[in-house]
Amino acid sequence: MNGAESLVRTMVNAGVDVCFTNPGTSEMHFVAALDKVDGMRCVLGLFEGGVTGMADGFARMADKPASTLLHLGPGLANGLANLHNARRAMTPIVNIVGDHTTYHHQYDAPLTADINKYAAPVSHWIKQSRSSKDVAQHGAEAIQASMTSPGQIATLILPGDTAWEDADGPAVALPEPVRPTVSAERVVEAAKLLKSGEETVIMMTGPMLREKPLETVGRIQAATGCRLFCMGANGRWERGAGRVDVERTMFVVDGALKQFETARNIILLGAKAPVAFFGYPGKPSALHPEGCNIFNLASVDEDAVAAAEALAAELDCVNLAPLLVEPTAAAPMNGPITPESLGRGIAAFMPENAIVVDESVTTGRAFMPFTAGAPKHDWLSSCGGSIGFGIPAATGAAIACPDRQVICLEGDGSGMYTLQALWTQARESCNVVNVIFANRTYEILKGELMRVGASNPGRKAIDMLEIGRPDLDWVAMAQGMGVPATRATTSEQFNDQFQRAVATDGPSLIEVVVP
Amino acid sequence: MNGAESLVRTMVNAGVDVCFTNPGTSEMHFVAALDKVDGMRCVLGLFEGGVTGMADGFARMADKPASTLLHLGPGLANGLANLHNARRAMTPIVNIVGDHTTYHHQYDAPLTADINKYAAPVSHWIKQSRSSKDVAQHGAEAIQASMTSPGQIATLILPGDTAWEDADGPAVALPEPVRPTVSAERVVEAAKLLKSGEETVIMMTGPMLREKPLETVGRIQAATGCRLFCMGANGRWERGAGRVDVERTMFVVDGALKQFETARNIILLGAKAPVAFFGYPGKPSALHPEGCNIFNLASVDEDAVAAAEALAAELDCVNLAPLLVEPTAAAPMNGPITPESLGRGIAAFMPENAIVVDESVTTGRAFMPFTAGAPKHDWLSSCGGSIGFGIPAATGAAIACPDRQVICLEGDGSGMYTLQALWTQARESCNVVNVIFANRTYEILKGELMRVGASNPGRKAIDMLEIGRPDLDWVAMAQGMGVPATRATTSEQFNDQFQRAVATDGPSLIEVVVP
Repeated sequence: MNGAESLVRTMVNAGVDVCFTNPGTSEMHFVAALDKVDGMRCVLGLFEGGVTGMADGFARMADKPASTLLHLGPGLANGLANLHNARRAMTPIVNIVGDHTTYHHQYDAPLTADINKYAAPVSHWIKQSRSSKDVAQHGAEAIQASMTSPGQIATLILPGDTAWEDADGPAVALPEPVRPTVSAERVVEAAKLLKSGEETVIMMTGPMLREKPLETVGRIQAATGCRLFCMGANGRWERGAGRVDVERTMFVVDGALKQFETARNIILLGAKAPVAFFGYPGKPSALHPEGCNIFNLASVDEDAVAAAEALAAELDCVNLAPLLVEPTAAAPMNGPITPESLGRGIAAFMPENAIVVDESVTTGRAFMPFTAGAPKHDWLSSCGGSIGFGIPAATGAAIACPDRQVICLEGDGSGMYTLQALWTQARESCNVVNVIFANRTYEILKGELMRVGASNPGRKAIDMLEIGRPDLDWVAMAQGMGVPATRATTSEQFNDQFQRAVATDGPSLIEVVVP
Repeated sequence: MNGAESLVRTMVNAGVDVCFTNPGTSEMHFVAALDKVDGMRCVLGLFEGGVTGMADGFARMADKPASTLLHLGPGLANGLANLHNARRAMTPIVNIVGDHTTYHHQYDAPLTADINKYAAPVSHWIKQSRSSKDVAQHGAEAIQASMTSPGQIATLILPGDTAWEDADGPAVALPEPVRPTVSAERVVEAAKLLKSGEETVIMMTGPMLREKPLETVGRIQAATGCRLFCMGANGRWERGAGRVDVERTMFVVDGALKQFETARNIILLGAKAPVAFFGYPGKPSALHPEGCNIFNLASVDEDAVAAAEALAAELDCVNLAPLLVEPTAAAPMNGPITPESLGRGIAAFMPENAIVVDESVTTGRAFMPFTAGAPKHDWLSSCGGSIGFGIPAATGAAIACPDRQVICLEGDGSGMYTLQALWTQARESCNVVNVIFANRTYEILKGELMRVGASNPGRKAIDMLEIGRPDLDWVAMAQGMGVPATRATTSEQFNDQFQRAVATDGPSLIEVVVP
């Protein structure tokens, strides 16, 4: 058994059995090992930005680490932006990055690069194997590192000779790291704030946004009248009818400041204090009002779920009924396409248990109220703000959950970043409806131009913000990658096409022409 | 005048007047300044991998630095792979990377990343402005750094507030750094080797591969019988009928070893000693035979052109006539598509002064002998081995040289990496014929699988090397981005379509179905 095979067997033993890849020469032994080892599914992406985005979507929904196989420094570099997003989403990912053989590095061949440096900004854990005998053990360590609370990026660099030389065999899986618990004192302190009579917000993300932990904070809300918030973008948010509702922190800074202006206490439960996405002239970066008390009950890497349960016990409300969202049948609309008509159409025809991958940027902000009472679903957002997340993440989510409908809400500008993932959806028969909102502009930037005070743009500036001239034909591009596609220019067309797409197996794409 | 405007004016003053960009919020003041400053052309790319590849192609052909405008760490990350290629090609590029405002960084907002770390592996020069008053001077320094012999990557990080706060005005252009010259002793030593009677190779790349320096070494060849070589990939190689021919170092290691097996001396003239692209089991990394003397006449950053002239003087051959390539009318072929029929067709119908951007990987290796005697042309290769170079570089080359025909020879696998650049070709009416060789496989990897000793691949391994199932429809994808496209399945069709594409203004694409 060579090093590559020892690694693949180690991964399968630890349950890391899906690998998203675009391999090259230095990864050929890993690829060859796939046929020798049962149980490893390898998914090809035609660009590494898609590969890492798929890994992010997969791991969020599979609740276990995804793996990637990437080709040297530049292959990793192409995947960095979606690893940045995954890192912010606290998604567990193990990257295997092939490298030149140990003795070839000194020759500075064309693809030689300092992979450690490329990996550093996105990785919590980095190791480079120097011997084929170490590869299996390093693989086990990488998997363990990726599961460190709540999820991390681990990058294992594998020189070619460590893949093709002899190994001793696979390594045993290492235990999942224990999530640190919070002290009883902190729980008591949080309870005091909640009973103070002052307006108190609980801010959450990560594992807190699953159905059960939300019920726990729903009880706390019922007992104390606190407000429940999540961050502007969250890795996986279980919402919909029959679940506890939370407010989402807004992107536009003025709206977000308004959300928190009356808060006297913000209790952090596995989340950070709310901050503006960007700094703007004359606006604060922190979203909480002056004098508001930020209390860290559980930091991002601590066991927020257990802290919430302890808090409910302290408040003596474990048997209180939380307020659950009523099912609301959103009525679909006819006529021109508007954010409301789209929000209503999506909510009305979304099947139970759908996975919504949301990179709809400006168009999609209006969808939240309409989908709040839709059938239970998961809402996945890009957490790092780097566009190009949606189509790949939807692909990965579909591979993790083949029995669930994935709905990818995608802007045309952001969709263009990693459109190659559509091909993987076709190859892997992913159950994804891709809805592309074609407003033919970086609409968000037109607003941002004003918000940073650079108003009255001329033709040259506007040209950098508009992506028409020529208009993109998403129907043609999708069909070119094997994904059936249609175009909707009215709400009737959208509702009809969306219903049919949901009812059909395999991927599809709807280009919605947003006026 | 704010910092952004002071920077744009500094750039225009220094002749850096084309900026390739995909901007975001933090770059809005730079974008707004475009309308206030005459003389700066801004070109939008729909993905940063395209943006940096365009900059590479532009600067190679414009003989001056290109600039890019990128959005924070992830925007730069998306452009790293083609910056890696540009660095290897010694292309002068100034990256302007917007960042959070100086005071916002501490809040660790979603897009926050260590831009310095992202920039480090590809940049020779990095600076972060801390005040709007410094931005212009830093811009001038970045431009100077990019022109350091023979060309470098300079990255200037620009926090939002340094763009929008007041500046004093533009900075004056700094002088181009002087290229170090080689000592007379080294020239004398090289002349001795050439007169020794031993087989001697002159290895070149970079500025040596222009018409005039090649004539100089052609004289040396006429005087001494030495062999003239270039590296496997070169930034810009002026070749064709009426020019001095050089041999190209082969990609496949066995072929390359054979090229040098009889060499006793290799004289480096602005190039490095030839090395294998990858390390392979049982094969050497260095391509020169044991006992072969590697003599460094001019290293990569020294003035190789002047060294060649000094060497010709030392050898007393400055008036000798170099051997020039005879024009050979390549006869086009009919019948099935083969590498030879394609090579002949391209050579036969290539107009004088064409710019060939070559990322044809396996298919294109056969083209070199057929194009050697074609009308004078420039041959641009990907120098860093990271795929996704071709379509963007062709776009940039067309923007640098609007009066010349650009021919982009592109593999389907590599083309998919940065296909978004087709849209920029359409928007900017670039004179590019994109020829996509659709063999529907990462053909190079099938060979590499064998060469690294991982033979007898099974279905799962082969699936990672083939990009059919579903087949990509390049005609549909190109049309979806506004580029007229056709498909050729016979040589007659290819020859006909290629002739017509060359005769037509604006971009076009031919999908060549390679059996």
